[in-house]
Parts: sequence; structure tokens; C-alpha cells
Amino acid sequence: MSSVQATRTIAGEQAKLQLEEFSVIGKRVPKYDSFEKVTGRAQFLIDLKLPGMLHGKILRSRYAHAKILNIDTSRAEAIPGVVAVLTAKDTPRIKFGFMKDNLPLKEGKVLSYRDEVAAVAAIDEETAIKALDAIEVEYERLPAVFDPLEAMKENAPKLHEENGGNLAKIPFSFRAGDVESVFERKDVIVDDGEFRLHFMTHVALGTMGALASCDSSGRLTIYANTQAPFMYQREIAEALGISGDRVRVIQPFIGGAFGRGMDLYPVDVIAAMLSMKTKRPVKILFSREEDLSYAPTRQPAIIKIKSAASRGGKLLARKVVVYLDTGAYVSWGAFDARVMMATCSGQYRIQNVSFDAWPVYTNNPYSGTMRGAGNPQINFAIESQMDTLAEKLSIDPIEFRLMNSNRAGDVTLQGMQVTTCAMDETLKVAAKEIGWKGRHCEEARGKKKRGIGFSTLFHVAGGARVYRSDGCGAMIKIDDFGKVTVLIGMSEIGTGSDTSIAQIAAEELGVPLSKIEIVNKDTSLKPWDVGIHASRATFIGGNAVLGAARSARKQILDLASRELLEDPSNLDVGNGEIYSKFSPEKRVDYAKLLRRSHFASGGTMVMSSYFFDPPTEMSEAENNFLGNISMAYAFGTQAVLVEVDEETGKIDVLKVVAVHDAGRILNPVGAEGQIEGGVVMSLSYALVEQLILDEGMVMNPSFADYKLFTSLEMPEIKVIFVGEPDPAGPFGAKGLGEHGCIPTAAALANALYDALGVRLQELPLTPDRVLDGLERKIRN
Amino acid sequence: MSSVQATRTIAGEQAKLQLEEFSVIGKRVPKYDSFEKVTGRAQFLIDLKLPGMLHGKILRSRYAHAKILNIDTSRAEAIPGVVAVLTAKDTPRIKFGFMKDNLPLKEGKVLSYRDEVAAVAAIDEETAIKALDAIEVEYERLPAVFDPLEAMKENAPKLHEENGGNLAKIPFSFRAGDVESVFERKDVIVDDGEFRLHFMTHVALGTMGALASCDSSGRLTIYANTQAPFMYQREIAEALGISGDRVRVIQPFIGGAFGRGMDLYPVDVIAAMLSMKTKRPVKILFSREEDLSYAPTRQPAIIKIKSAASRGGKLLARKVVVYLDTGAYVSWGAFDARVMMATCSGQYRIQNVSFDAWPVYTNNPYSGTMRGAGNPQINFAIESQMDTLAEKLSIDPIEFRLMNSNRAGDVTLQGMQVTTCAMDETLKVAAKEIGWKGRHCEEARGKKKRGIGFSTLFHVAGGARVYRSDGCGAMIKIDDFGKVTVLIGMSEIGTGSDTSIAQIAAEELGVPLSKIEIVNKDTSLKPWDVGIHASRATFIGGNAVLGAARSARKQILDLASRELLEDPSNLDVGNGEIYSKFSPEKRVDYAKLLRRSHFASGGTMVMSSYFFDPPTEMSEAENNFLGNISMAYAFGTQAVLVEVDEETGKIDVLKVVAVHDAGRILNPVGAEGQIEGGVVMSLSYALVEQLILDEGMVMNPSFADYKLFTSLEMPEIKVIFVGEPDPAGPFGAKGLGEHGCIPTAAALANALYDALGVRLQELPLTPDRVLDGLERKIRN
Repeated sequence: MSSVQATRTIAGEQAKLQLEEFSVIGKRVPKYDSFEKVTGRAQFLIDLKLPGMLHGKILRSRYAHAKILNIDTSRAEAIPGVVAVLTAKDTPRIKFGFMKDNLPLKEGKVLSYRDEVAAVAAIDEETAIKALDAIEVEYERLPAVFDPLEAMKENAPKLHEENGGNLAKIPFSFRAGDVESVFERKDVIVDDGEFRLHFMTHVALGTMGALASCDSSGRLTIYANTQAPFMYQREIAEALGISGDRVRVIQPFIGGAFGRGMDLYPVDVIAAMLSMKTKRPVKILFSREEDLSYAPTRQPAIIKIKSAASRGGKLLARKVVVYLDTGAYVSWGAFDARVMMATCSGQYRIQNVSFDAWPVYTNNPYSGTMRGAGNPQINFAIESQMDTLAEKLSIDPIEFRLMNSNRAGDVTLQGMQVTTCAMDETLKVAAKEIGWKGRHCEEARGKKKRGIGFSTLFHVAGGARVYRSDGCGAMIKIDDFGKVTVLIGMSEIGTGSDTSIAQIAAEELGVPLSKIEIVNKDTSLKPWDVGIHASRATFIGGNAVLGAARSARKQILDLASRELLEDPSNLDVGNGEIYSKFSPEKRVDYAKLLRRSHFASGGTMVMSSYFFDPPTEMSEAENNFLGNISMAYAFGTQAVLVEVDEETGKIDVLKVVAVHDAGRILNPVGAEGQIEGGVVMSLSYALVEQLILDEGMVMNPSFADYKLFTSLEMPEIKVIFVGEPDPAGPFGAKGLGEHGCIPTAAALANALYDALGVRLQELPLTPDRVLDGLERKIRN
Repeated sequence: MSSVQATRTIAGEQAKLQLEEFSVIGKRVPKYDSFEKVTGRAQFLIDLKLPGMLHGKILRSRYAHAKILNIDTSRAEAIPGVVAVLTAKDTPRIKFGFMKDNLPLKEGKVLSYRDEVAAVAAIDEETAIKALDAIEVEYERLPAVFDPLEAMKENAPKLHEENGGNLAKIPFSFRAGDVESVFERKDVIVDDGEFRLHFMTHVALGTMGALASCDSSGRLTIYANTQAPFMYQREIAEALGISGDRVRVIQPFIGGAFGRGMDLYPVDVIAAMLSMKTKRPVKILFSREEDLSYAPTRQPAIIKIKSAASRGGKLLARKVVVYLDTGAYVSWGAFDARVMMATCSGQYRIQNVSFDAWPVYTNNPYSGTMRGAGNPQINFAIESQMDTLAEKLSIDPIEFRLMNSNRAGDVTLQGMQVTTCAMDETLKVAAKEIGWKGRHCEEARGKKKRGIGFSTLFHVAGGARVYRSDGCGAMIKIDDFGKVTVLIGMSEIGTGSDTSIAQIAAEELGVPLSKIEIVNKDTSLKPWDVGIHASRATFIGGNAVLGAARSARKQILDLASRELLEDPSNLDVGNGEIYSKFSPEKRVDYAKLLRRSHFASGGTMVMSSYFFDPPTEMSEAENNFLGNISMAYAFGTQAVLVEVDEETGKIDVLKVVAVHDAGRILNPVGAEGQIEGGVVMSLSYALVEQLILDEGMVMNPSFADYKLFTSLEMPEIKVIFVGEPDPAGPFGAKGLGEHGCIPTAAALANALYDALGVRLQELPLTPDRVLDGLERKIRN
């Protein structure tokens, strides 16, 4: 392992040298909004009140699948304090959503317990609840289906008749090489398995909802927990049958989104329709019970995966079939299939891949997309199988991964161009830091066994062209005090991206961080951006602000050139000053220079704008899913040390080492926080979190019954960043927002196997499953 | 008068022709914010509430002039619900204001009943009032002075010892030619008079106040009824001893400002200090009684004026001395002296001028600046005297004015360059429209006599460089729906300027008005602007938005050029489309073009910015008050027909004709409204409005006692615009915000003279003064 040490030392020194060039970049900077959050001043959706505001509530289906025969709202309407009652017949009934298969208020049929049947706006919440109780709905119950494999059968109950069957019509199929002929070869080692991923929900602290305010001219302002305000603007306008410019979207402080902010939901459209009807602001905010019952989930999946390697350890082929349980409607969660495809075809060098994924309609809860967007699910399958293959090959699992790992210059089967890549280094560093000495290194402590597991990751890290634009706009104005206002499309949803964006502006302009103000909560004010997803905020938003800052800097150097009688090329910025690199006495501070330029006849002020859209390609069915969708890719390895109690089946996580290549780290404290948060979220996913369903109904919609990983279970987490600055990233940064949560589950499952020899292929890794596994192992 | 008719017809046809070129410019457009205002949705200061907000109240002096011996706040502090009590000793005590002679909370001495002695923040208004009552202040009363002429005497009580005397040390003196030798000549006609202008207050419907909110990091957000948010930002920061970029100023809907929004007031600083002390939002809002008692007034003035003309009717010389009663502190109202100077030296061709103006400290209410900024006062004196001179010369007053009027190409004695100028036409049209047939045309109706009077005006109309910058910045972004967001420094204070700015953007970009959104209420967002004053909003703000729109238009034509395969120079915009001027089939709508340009790899969006600062000069004591301070000047004539009851002295105004040259009129309905509003304000000023003072105390602080001109007294008002588009103005517009209110009072006084032969030189023209005048006339 001495080579690892050497690499790290060099990387460390290099990093140190590089950091010295910068005044703000690479420094441990507190989150930009931390003051407002820790003092309780930050206004979340729950805090917002508008004059005359009404409270909205939604009546949902009594059955998982039923015909609506009649809705009688007359008793509800007669209740004093009820201002409006809506059912489908009062609305434009325009289908919306990823597959345009959803209506804000259902007509004819309900397809899940979540389905919205009627909505009420009243002067207070109590009255709204009373009104819901007074709405009488007659149903005719229909047979329902809750398993995607069952739902695909010909005689299964059909949810959307117009769709023909329960397979959503999106062809997520990719072929390269010839997997079948590899599997037929005698000289290869094949592993064939089925993995099952369960229902997990986002459990954002801020529950779902929307506050809509329609003015007297019909213009709609909507306060929404969205991650993609401009997409939301377009989609809600379409759903309401109005033009997008009649809608203004304001993001309050977001109490967690984690992917569920990608979609438009019935609640948003209903709040808007209630406000349009009443011409008063209407807020609908889910209770925690509603949030756990009716908010979306991560895509549950059944993954069938078969891989082959040569006896020498070369990965040869992989065949994957995925069934996603999309619930009653298709969300952006369907896109998880494309992330899974990219991982199957691109994580490790491989030549033969067959991939198919099918979102399947069921009468289960509506599933959405969640941090990692399919990668945590597929990674669990692939990286579990990598370990099994390595064992069959009798090759050390680290060694096996190193033999097949991506390198800079690689192009994946789908055409993704790997530029900077420190995959090997992440594997080596992770192995060393966790104390890997080869398989089955468990130490006995009575009935407790220890084990170590690894998993790697491959994910976009330079934007992701999942929509026709992956762009972000930024505008800058600098005031007489040298304060820099950045109007930027990129949102802040609690990840710390504003802090990175402020650092980039401060570094490029040579001003202290305290002089940067970010304005990005209002679609009326900020330039367009596609939204927060695919770990793109720092990379894309950073490049946008960098472009605008460069233009502002040029203007400033030109002004200073006249002031200091020095050629602009001899000037530099720093510490809020512009100075000559050669004559240090020539210097002027920002505020003074800007005032002088401003306070003169025909004066000027510094303003600039920039739109950054990366030169990437969409990868779609039309082009056989080929295309370089991102300007950069991230790599990483996580190692987990567990201790498992053979008597109880309980897994204690002792240590997680997360080694990630995310280019230059702009704000170490923020980056570490993102990785740690991702690790914890996936420990929780892999070990305890689970929506328990009974024929489509959530049985544990409270934090008493929906278990979360808490501070009591927390292991030591060591985050290490390796790799080089990425030439395409702002100051060399790559994205990292989702990466921490991707490999953790597989690493845990591999550690469990290392400890007990028990291979679990279904999450969560509960004590009863561990004990079942032990029993199976003993039986075999 | 046939020449007048001819001119008008040509002007009318010309105007018609010019209008046909435009789609939005010149159209009668409703005010941009009218929906929000008529539906009661507009949020004024009184409507604003922030979480945890406290209510502030100010304790004022018990005497017009006194020493403060002791302040005991202990009883007030002990009242439950009182969160903070401030006196001078708790504050930074940094002097602020136009002459830096004012403290937010006074120490040592109080100089007027308005003076702020202590302030309280409490959980509600009742508690705050209780706390004020519990504050004990010991005073030692001092002799006071309430007349500026008395105050100038050597033995008068001194207000500011450090000032040496009661004359504020600002030298407003201008000399050209040799007035005295003209006055000594035997062949000239001289008139020598003294005019007195009284206390009138702004009576804005929104009373004065401020809502300050200091966050935990010490950053201050302040909601203020200011007209000049960036000046306010700088000044309040200085008064608080913090940097300007720590202050964010938000203008809610402004319930009238009329000039009083130019200054920073103790109430603003006190609200901020209370919030900084309590770390909670604090709102102080004046009651109507406080507003009438303690808000500023128009500058009261004593004007001594002597003019001479040759017997042939040529104006030869004018000598003016003005004493402004500034009250206890000097405000931006002192600048009124410079506007008066410009009118004395520039209204009419003249070669010999001597002008001096002195703001004088008294223990009267604090006087400020008000619409017209001194011009309504000086115009009353000059234009009254012009009529008297004309009579002495036996020349028709219209003829006399025509003989001396400004023409295009003139340069005034102070160096103001007259470009477009339709002064003569305004005189001729006004005379015709009012039915002027020469002096004393009164018709007898029993004891009621009719009379006609005229007055002209000269005022800046292309910005006014009264500060080191007269600039305004604008930024534009255009979204995927073709909606244009304009972030502009220029504020909207209720005058309709946003509507003009939107028209300019819409016209230049060829989109409907409904596609323009103006963002200009927040210093954090908008680029710098000096503020709303000097009738500059449409001219300066219009040129700023025009610059940004031109740049956006160029980008759009370039994009369309690629889309339509047509040279950009062959393309034009209109009706939300870009089209070829030569191949009409080549056309694309905004939304489609912008989406195509946006939704492509390496896509782009349209953003632009522009800062407009006119190439004008400051005119200051240092350069002998020489300099072209504005890019354009406005001219006008008002004619008034009155009927006066000889028995009661009551003046009924029957008709006002207001003929104004304001360049091209962008929005006739808005322009007419501005002129009508000005006329009514000055009818009210000249006839009824008056603060009644008893040794510095306002005796009529309620609308029951402070009389306003209302709809019951309203005459017919006919507004006529003449003149040509100004080449420097946006689409040819000149300013007009203040102009309506400038000549009305003198025209009324001249009409009164025409009716009864009574010359009144003091406002208001009350029935008792009319009767006194009649008695004097009979006695003589």
C-alpha cells in the first residue's frame, strides 16, 4: 500500500500549493444562510402568511382502485367559512406530469389511496377539515394490483386503459456488443441475481405543499418547495391552461427536497386553482402523516442482473432488467432508469451490455426520484455482484475493481467521455483507511463478527443534459460600496450551493465573501436555470457566475487602468482592491474606484450577465441513448466496517470511509457535509427506513413507526477527497451533491457478507433478514 | 390668433403622423400598478407586518426651544411589553442631513416642537404610547424665534451655536451683468415687491414612517417611503456608523411623496436603531396628527424681487433676495434656492441678474422640499411681477411674455442650453383656449367679477445634475415566454413612471405591454439610481431602459437572423414577433425564437444591461453656479379663469388651461393626470392650504382644520401638450412631473387682479385677504 501513501502525499502537497493561490476557494466557509437558519429567521413554507390567506385541504381516495360514481359537495359548501370546494368538473382537466398521465383532481377513477378527489379552501384549517368530512363520494371498488411483476401479467387490473397495459410506454433499452454469446462461453464466470429495493421516502423536514396567490388580473404567484422553479413555472402554467409568463415562482427556504422537488404535484395545481377561484392566497401544507402517506418515494425496483468476467478478472458482459414500481402515475422517477443505464454501461470498462428498464403502473404509492436518481438502487445490485464475482474469481475485491476501473480518456459504451478520473486512487485510499487486509478479516467479540465491504461509484459531475437545456444564467451588479449582487438562476435548496457560488464570485472579483449577495429565490428576478438535480449546482451555476464575474472583472480592470494609469493586463484584484502586479503603490479599493467611475458626468456602473450551457449531448431513445451528457464525471469508493451480532442479526456500523473524486473542493466543510449527509441517508436506507404497505396503504405514516437512522446509531465517518482540479469545472470543481449516498448500501451488504458470509439482496438489511440469511447459510 | 390655430393644426397632424409609427408609445395606457391599487392588494407601509415586529413611538420636545436637563426613562423601561427605550446617550450620535446639523435623538438642546427626545419599541402601540407618557424630561426653556427676518437679527436666539448665527452657511448667490445700473437708468420701468409664501405640507395619504429589520448578523433591511433609495441607503448607513452595503432599502407602494421622500429623517434612523438594539423588526408609523405636525413642509419664503424693463417691453434686469424659513434643521429644501436661481436667471431672456437666497434657522417646523422644488414659490413672485410690469408698460401680458420668451438655441445666464422649446406656442394656445381678449374682460354677475390670469414656467426636463451622478442603471432578461423583466434603478412613487418605462421597453422590443415586468423596489436587486426628483423619471429612467432594450434587441435580431436566414439589418420587431422587412413570410415569434436559442447545446438566453448618465454639468458655488444641469428644459403656460365675489372675497376657479411643452407625450392619460394633479395641488396651495402656527406649534393638525382643495371646488381643467419630440429624450419625451404645479398660483393671483384690480403678494389668496385688498384699493 505504499503506493497509495505516496499518491496521497503528492496529492496533498499539490492541493496545498494550489490552495495558496486562492483567497476564498478551498477555505472552510460556513454556509451562506446559516445565520438565518440557526436564528430561526429563515422563512419556510410553513412560516409564510399572506393577507387574506385561506387554508386548503385535499380529500383523497378511500380505495386503492375504484370508480368514482358520484361526488356531492353541497354539504361542504354550506359550511360557514368554506370559501371554495373543487372537484374535477370545476377544473380545466389538463393532464400533466412526466407522462401526462395525471390530473390534479381525478375524474372517473381513482388509482391509489393518494388520489386527489376534491379540495377545499376555508378560512382556517379546522373548517377545511370539517368540509372534507362533509364531502360525500360514492365509489365502486375495483380489483387492484400492488406488485410490478403481477401488474405486467395480461389479466392484471389495468390502471390507465388508454395505455393498453401497465407497462409505461418509455423504451429504456440499450444494447452494446453481444451479452448472450459471452454468457454462453465456457471460460467465463457468471453471476445471476435478483435484487429488490423497497419504498423509502424523502422525509424532508419541511412537508409538501404550496402557497398560491392569484391577483385580480389572473397573475399567479406560487411559493413552492420546488428544486426546478422554471420547469415548475412551465408545467404548472400548462396544467392550468395559462401562459408561463403569468406564473411567478418563489422558493422560500426549502426544508429539504432530495429529488422530490423535481416534479409538479397535484397539490401545487390544486392550490393554484383554489386561489384562482377565490382570488385569495391559498396555502396547502401536508401534515407529517400526509407527507409520509402521500409524498413520493424513491423508485422501488426489482433488478435482475447477470454479469460475466474472464477467469483473469476482466469484466466481460452485463445484462440488466429493471422493473420500477412507479405507482399510479409516472414521475421524473422514470428517469432513474436512464441513470441506471449509464451506471450499467459505464461503471467499469465493459464491452457487452444489455439493459432494459420498465416503469410499471401499480396501485401503490406514487414513486418519484430521489438523491442519486436510481444510482443508489442499481449500485446496490452491481456492486454486490462485483463482490460475488470477485469471490468466484478468487480475486481480492479491491484488486478486481482496479483491474476494471475507468481511467481518464475512457469513453463509456454510451459515449460518456471520462476526463479527470481518480477511481483507482479512491479504491486504494479507501482500502488503506478502513484497514483492509483481505477478505474475512473479522475479529471475534463473542457472537459479534466484524466485516469490511466496499463499493465504488460512477455519476455525472459536470451537469447532465436531461432536458433540452442544461443552462444557467447569471447577472452581476456591483454597487458603490463594492458589494456584488449576483442574480443567478441556480437555486439553493439547503445543499450549500450558494456558498460555493459566492466563493467563485468572490475569488474571481477579489473581494471578501461578505461582499457577495446571492439573489435566486424568484423566477421574476433570476435568469433561467433548469433546476437542482444531477449534482449540477456548483458546476453549472459556478460556471455561470464565473462567466458573469469575468465580464465584471474586465470592466473593473478597465476602469482601474484609467484610474491608476496602468495597462489592464498588469492589474490584478484581491482583498477588495485592484492593484498593479508590478508597481505595488498603484492600488485602489473597489468602493473608491466604483464611486469615482460612477460620480462623474456620463458616469458608469459595473453590470454584467452570462448564460452558461455546457456543450453536452442528450442521450435519448432516438439516438440509441448515445451521447456525452455531462462535462465531467465523478468517481469514488466507500468502505464500511460493521460489527454484526449473530444472535440478534443487528448490524452496527463502526466506520465509513468515503473517498471521493470531485475535482477541486471549493469549500471543504460544505463538501464533507454533503458526503456525510449522503452516507447517513444511505445507511438509513440500507438498514432501517421502509414504508410498510398493506395493499397500497402506508401503514407507518409517523416518525414513531417510520424508523430513521439517528445520531445514536452514527458511525465514525471519514471523508477524503482525492483527484485533480477538473479543467471544465469552475476553479476545477466537479459536482458531488448526490455522490455520498450512492455506494453506501452495497458497501454495507458487502461488509455483512464479509462478516457472516450472508449475502442479502433486498433492502433494508434488517436483523430478521440477517438471521434468515444465517439460517439459509447453515441449511445449505 | 389665426397663427396659433395654424401652429396647433400642424403640431396636431405632426403628432398624429408620429404616433402612427408606434405601437405603444403615445397610446393611452392605464397605470401599471392600477390593478393592485384599485383592488386593495398594493401593500403600503401601513400594511406591512413582519414576524416578531415591534411598534416604535417617538417622544418629542415640549417646547420650541429648550435645554434638556435630564431624561429619566426608568419608569418607561419597567412597563411590561416595553422592549427598548432609546435616548441620545444610547446612540452613535452622528449628525446627518443636508447640512449635517441634525441628530436622530437630540442631546443638550431641543430646537422645535418636532425635536425627537426619546424613542420606545414595545409589543404594541398602546404599550409604546404608555411608555412615552412615563418618560420624564426636565427642560429649561429658552427664548425662541419664529420669523426668518427676526432670526437674522444679531440679538436673536441662536439655534445652532456652532453655526455662528441663524443664517445657514450655504452661499446661494449669482451675479450676471449689473442690475443696479439698470435700475438707476431713467428710461426703464421698475417694479419692486415683496412676496410671502406660507407653510404648506405634502399631505401624502401614506403617513411618514419606517419599518426596520436588523438581522442577527447586523444587516439592516428598511422599508421606507423614500424617493431616493440609494441616497437613503448611503445616508442612513452613515448616520448609523455602518457601511452602506449592510443596508437594504425596500420601497413598498408609496402613498405619496411629492418631494418629502428626498430626505432621510430622524424617524428612519430611530426605527433602525431600535431594531438594531432589539434585533427585532420595528415599525414606526406617524398618525395623521403626527404627520401634519412633524412631517416637513414646502419651504416658506420671503421673496424680495425687483425687475426692470425697457419702455419698449424688453426685460432688462432682475434682483432677487430670498429668505427661506428652514426651521430648526436644513433639508434638501435648501436646494429650492438653486431652482429659484435658475428660474430667476433663465425664465425669459435677460442679461442682468442678481440673486441671493438664505436658508434661515428658526424654531418653526422643519421645512423640506416639495414638488417643483422652489419653482412654485419663485414663479408666484416673478410671474405676478411680470403682469405688473406689463401693466406699467401698457403692453398685453401675453405680448410682453412673448417679447421676452426663451427660444430654441438660447443659453441662459447660468449656462443652461435650451434645445427644444415651444414657449411661444404655449402662450398663444393658452390665450386662445381661455378666451383671452385683453385685460379686464370681467363680466358682471351681480357682485361677482370674472378675471383671467396667466403664468409661464421654465423647469428642468432632462434630468438635473444636483448630485455627482444623475444616472440610472437598467438590466433586462427575457424568458422563454417572451416576457421581459426590467430591473431598473428608477423608482415608482405613484407618478406612473413605471408605465412609461414599460412602454419604452415594449416599443423598442416590439412586444405587447403585458409582456413587460418592472422590478424596482429593492436596492438589493436594482441597479443604482439617484432618485425620483426634478421630473427625471421618464427621461433618465427611459433612456436607461432604452439602452438596455437596444442591446437586448440587437441580441434578438442576431438570433433571429440565424433562424430566418436574413441579415439582421433587414429585420424588425413588432407584435411580439421578429420579421423581415422585405420578406414578410420570414417571421418568428419571440417565445419560439427564444426557446430554440435556449434549448440547444451551448444554448443562450437574452440578458443585457445599461447605465445612463447624461453628459450634464453640476452648477455649484465653486463654478459660480454655471453649468448645463439638464439635457432638456420644459416650458408651459397656464391660464386661469376665476370668478370673485366682491362681498365675500371668495374666489371660484372656473377653468384652468394648462399648455405644456414636454416633448413627445408617451402616455397621454398619464401625462394629463400629472399636469392635472399639479394644477390641483397648486390651486389648493394658492387658495386654501395652510399650516397655522402659534410660536412654532402646528395648530391645525387634522383634516378637519387643515383645508384641502377637494372635488367640490374643482374647476374644468384642460390640458394641452404642444412642442416637438426632444432629440435627447427617450422616443422624444421630456420630463413633466412637477410642471403642472409651478405656474398655477401666479396665474390665479393675476386672474384675481384682472377681476378686481387687487394685487395679493401673499398666499393663500383667502377671502379675508381679498376683502382687505379691496378695502386698500378703495382707500387709495
